[in-house]
Amino acid sequence: MPASYAYLGPEGTFTEVALRTLPEAATRELIPYVSVQSALDAVRVGEAEAAFVPIENSVEGGITATLDELVAGTPLMIYREVLLSITFALLVRPGTKLSDIKTVTAHPAAQPQVRNWLKTHLPDVVWESSASNADGARLVQEGRYDAAFAGEFAAARYGLEALETEIHDAENAQTRFVLVGRPARPAAPTGADKTSVVLWQRDDHPGGLRDLLGEFATRGINLMLLQSRPTGAGIGNYCFCVDAEGHISDRRMSEALMGLKRICLQVRYLGSYPRADIRPGEARPPFPGTSDEEFTGAADWVARCQDGRF
Amino acid sequence: MPASYAYLGPEGTFTEVALRTLPEAATRELIPYVSVQSALDAVRVGEAEAAFVPIENSVEGGITATLDELVAGTPLMIYREVLLSITFALLVRPGTKLSDIKTVTAHPAAQPQVRNWLKTHLPDVVWESSASNADGARLVQEGRYDAAFAGEFAAARYGLEALETEIHDAENAQTRFVLVGRPARPAAPTGADKTSVVLWQRDDHPGGLRDLLGEFATRGINLMLLQSRPTGAGIGNYCFCVDAEGHISDRRMSEALMGLKRICLQVRYLGSYPRADIRPGEARPPFPGTSDEEFTGAADWVARCQDGRF
Amino acid sequence: MPASYAYLGPEGTFTEVALRTLPEAATRELIPYVSVQSALDAVRVGEAEAAFVPIENSVEGGITATLDELVAGTPLMIYREVLLSITFALLVRPGTKLSDIKTVTAHPAAQPQVRNWLKTHLPDVVWESSASNADGARLVQEGRYDAAFAGEFAAARYGLEALETEIHDAENAQTRFVLVGRPARPAAPTGADKTSVVLWQRDDHPGGLRDLLGEFATRGINLMLLQSRPTGAGIGNYCFCVDAEGHISDRRMSEALMGLKRICLQVRYLGSYPRADIRPGEARPPFPGTSDEEFTGAADWVARCQDGRF
Amino acid sequence: MPASYAYLGPEGTFTEVALRTLPEAATRELIPYVSVQSALDAVRVGEAEAAFVPIENSVEGGITATLDELVAGTPLMIYREVLLSITFALLVRPGTKLSDIKTVTAHPAAQPQVRNWLKTHLPDVVWESSASNADGARLVQEGRYDAAFAGEFAAARYGLEALETEIHDAENAQTRFVLVGRPARPAAPTGADKTSVVLWQRDDHPGGLRDLLGEFATRGINLMLLQSRPTGAGIGNYCFCVDAEGHISDRRMSEALMGLKRICLQVRYLGSYPRADIRPGEARPPFPGTSDEEFTGAADWVARCQDGRF
Repeated sequence: MPASYAYLGPEGTFTEVALRTLPEAATRELIPYVSVQSALDAVRVGEAEAAFVPIENSVEGGITATLDELVAGTPLMIYREVLLSITFALLVRPGTKLSDIKTVTAHPAAQPQVRNWLKTHLPDVVWESSASNADGARLVQEGRYDAAFAGEFAAARYGLEALETEIHDAENAQTRFVLVGRPARPAAPTGADKTSVVLWQRDDHPGGLRDLLGEFATRGINLMLLQSRPTGAGIGNYCFCVDAEGHISDRRMSEALMGLKRICLQVRYLGSYPRADIRPGEARPPFPGTSDEEFTGAADWVARCQDGRF
Repeated sequence: MPASYAYLGPEGTFTEVALRTLPEAATRELIPYVSVQSALDAVRVGEAEAAFVPIENSVEGGITATLDELVAGTPLMIYREVLLSITFALLVRPGTKLSDIKTVTAHPAAQPQVRNWLKTHLPDVVWESSASNADGARLVQEGRYDAAFAGEFAAARYGLEALETEIHDAENAQTRFVLVGRPARPAAPTGADKTSVVLWQRDDHPGGLRDLLGEFATRGINLMLLQSRPTGAGIGNYCFCVDAEGHISDRRMSEALMGLKRICLQVRYLGSYPRADIRPGEARPPFPGTSDEEFTGAADWVARCQDGRF
Repeated sequence: MPASYAYLGPEGTFTEVALRTLPEAATRELIPYVSVQSALDAVRVGEAEAAFVPIENSVEGGITATLDELVAGTPLMIYREVLLSITFALLVRPGTKLSDIKTVTAHPAAQPQVRNWLKTHLPDVVWESSASNADGARLVQEGRYDAAFAGEFAAARYGLEALETEIHDAENAQTRFVLVGRPARPAAPTGADKTSVVLWQRDDHPGGLRDLLGEFATRGINLMLLQSRPTGAGIGNYCFCVDAEGHISDRRMSEALMGLKRICLQVRYLGSYPRADIRPGEARPPFPGTSDEEFTGAADWVARCQDGRF
Repeated sequence: MPASYAYLGPEGTFTEVALRTLPEAATRELIPYVSVQSALDAVRVGEAEAAFVPIENSVEGGITATLDELVAGTPLMIYREVLLSITFALLVRPGTKLSDIKTVTAHPAAQPQVRNWLKTHLPDVVWESSASNADGARLVQEGRYDAAFAGEFAAARYGLEALETEIHDAENAQTRFVLVGRPARPAAPTGADKTSVVLWQRDDHPGGLRDLLGEFATRGINLMLLQSRPTGAGIGNYCFCVDAEGHISDRRMSEALMGLKRICLQVRYLGSYPRADIRPGEARPPFPGTSDEEFTGAADWVARCQDGRF
């Protein structure tokens, strides 16, 4: 097994910064790939131990390139998630003043986050998209553009300086990244975990999706993401990527997954892993009737009834 | 353990006839008791191995005396059920003609079943209630009344003859009896079984009862009886006696019972036993997603996911 | 229309006492009938304006004789309900002391309420049932028994005195009575009302009853009674008598009734009337999303959408 | 009101072809815009009567740029939908042979549809993305690339010829387009209609989304699209774009929308319009209990009950 992590490159982007927040990243070789697909393929073919890719952000929702890779092909599994607040710095060559800036660049995904700032501070600037925020910084370094929106951390790498930092139109702009590997035993539950699955309905009828969600709801499990993705069988045919609060080793979750497995055409398990938005101990307690103790107590009671000891 | 069955007496009633349809009754001493309560108490104190009592009929619904005994006190368990079609004979002293009859008697419960027949054939007769149908027959024998409605089988015992048989206002008039004993390992599943439980809601809110029933519904389990009984905590406070299709050893049923145990204030298991209305092999197949194989397959899949083998 | 109320007699029982709590009873002739059926028939044939009968008590639950009359035959309607706390007095001929009492009588329904008191205070007494509590008092007057359990109010009528009052084994023992008449416009809503209906399922399948109850639950309507009654089509065939919080003029209730009408084989409306257990103003507020204002607002919004004004 | 339709340009793309299938397009000036946003803004500011944009395709699912515009800002409304099968032609300058092709271009969205064809027929070709399929064709005309994937209809416009047609990796590859205008009275129901709404949950709890979907399910309404979109309030905060079978003038749909309006934080109506996938008369009949007749009958029945005529 190679001690390396693939990640969505290039170097110097928010993805790399997010990856480096994982302690285990310090002991791996980190290799940038040009696309989500190629990073995940590196895992599938054994070139990398795991791949680190964005999966959801507060502006775009689910990242479809990542979801579509997880939904199809050789099964993969989410090991970890990382949340990163996304704020931009305006990077310029040393000495450039705000009034000097005629052109700016960044990855198109940055645009919704900086639009208002631009309207206020640089209303007449010309925007050109670049392939990545890091690439935009490089193009500023090379003199092609006057300024780039990128993470502040990119300044040093490209010999630029930040004229402005903490630029973000939306409060709470965050991107969620996942570390994805080959199927393995899920990480031990921490008390604040998340489980990801993909669900395919058996057939299409009124209430079909409602009943799938009912498997979670009746066991007190909250959903954190529900993202439909085309199945490829034509327009209107969807599967559903679901993130649910809890760990597969929780009794309520394992019973919900069993229920889904029975009523769905197909269920793909994508892993159980610690939540990045809260710490262990901060998760709300199980709803009445859904704790492991209550599940175990109920199973014991049924066993006693089956034995005539009641 | 005494090799005797208590039953709701007196001798010569439909209850005794139903009891004698059970093969095991041939090897027990059958002892009549004056009430459902006393018959069941005989089981509770160990005087009888089991008690045979009516629990439901097509005119009255659930027999509240029986249900209330099963709901409260030392736990009991239903071992078997028997269905008996109820049709009446008009019993008279030999030689009596229809035109001679001025008075008739029977247990009050017989009245709804013979009312129309009386209106047509004996519109002017005087009705007097008796303590049981058998007792009514005895009173005819003694000359107190001219005729009694009772099971045809009672004629011989009291030296009477049946002027008319197969009297029944309602088609499909049936009574359901149960053989009740102390808690024991339930009879093996036959493929056409019934499970009885009593449910107490945790609290009273819109949807509370709907959610209890949902534990059966979402697992494809049909209900055969839902009878509310007062809890004794004042008007409007009810528990629910439920008969559901299936055996506690069916995976769908054991999971439903676990679900109920978790969300109810209290669940009392009353047993799983062969259905008397159909034979093994006549039960409809499980609904899609609810067979034992599908439950086992889903549990195996979750176990593989937990182990990282997927 | 005769200015008379039929009621379940005889005179001097709890039923009469409950009836006299209704202000309108003061202006009617009150006529006792020997049975629930005959009292309700008096209404059906126009002999009486309305009939007053027990429908539910905290020991027996729903009174099946009354429910079965409401379920079948010419439609009737509940105009009013009355709750009466049931406590017994021990009535004796003047001068009788507790130690003189060898025999007691009462209607059998009284027995569960006085059993513990008897065990403590008169452990060796002989119990004989009488046709009604009032009749028991009469038999004590005549010297047939030493004492009768009856309402304290019966003492004066039969020249007896109460040796003991407030006898009741169960706390909160109550009986609920209803004033039943021919179909009419329901009483105006008071803010604390109850609606009674009878529901027949369209077919029997897993989830059928759950879905019926869902029509109430999804609109935030709490149920106060669910009593199954045989349909007469054979054992296991039931309709359901339901009491639900609210008035048919409440938008949530009228929409729930419409929903039931659409999915049930049959729905029989039994009336909307003021609750006797609480006063107007004491009812809890509607659940979020279920107030009349919210229903009206939603209907207005849909109308605007249909008109293109949104 | 300007007699013009904005559409997502440039000219010569599938969008324009789809738009021209609408009869009303023949009488309007059709004006290409550089983005979905600018086309919809043209409607909002009154520059165009309506805008024609893609909203869903069988490879990408919901088109987020379009959905996000419909979800936020000044309300808009979907007037019509069009389905177009997407197959590509390989366009070359006249005389070019397959073996001459070293470079190909097209919009990136075309890539998943032609990948397998390329692997088989042109395994060594170099792919370069272009801004649109039409733009790719233009670049071939100019000699920048050897071949372009585009709609066959683009050949004539750019003086190219189709070496191959009907190229499509996925069967049933379709794109769904919508004609979007300002709020107006929806088109009359045809019997095969679709209704689009956006739903915001009131709060986030287990079962929240299940209950929203239940408003459709309990009224027999099938869903055709459920696409979550970020609300902008941070990661994990979503609203839901829903397409449901039926027209707002159907009673089941108007009642479902009322129910959603009551329980949601917010509902945005996006219109009711004829389905493009089937013709009137091909829609399946309403589920039992959900036809307009049944709704009207139920409402009449409740009205009669309220009037005492039952």
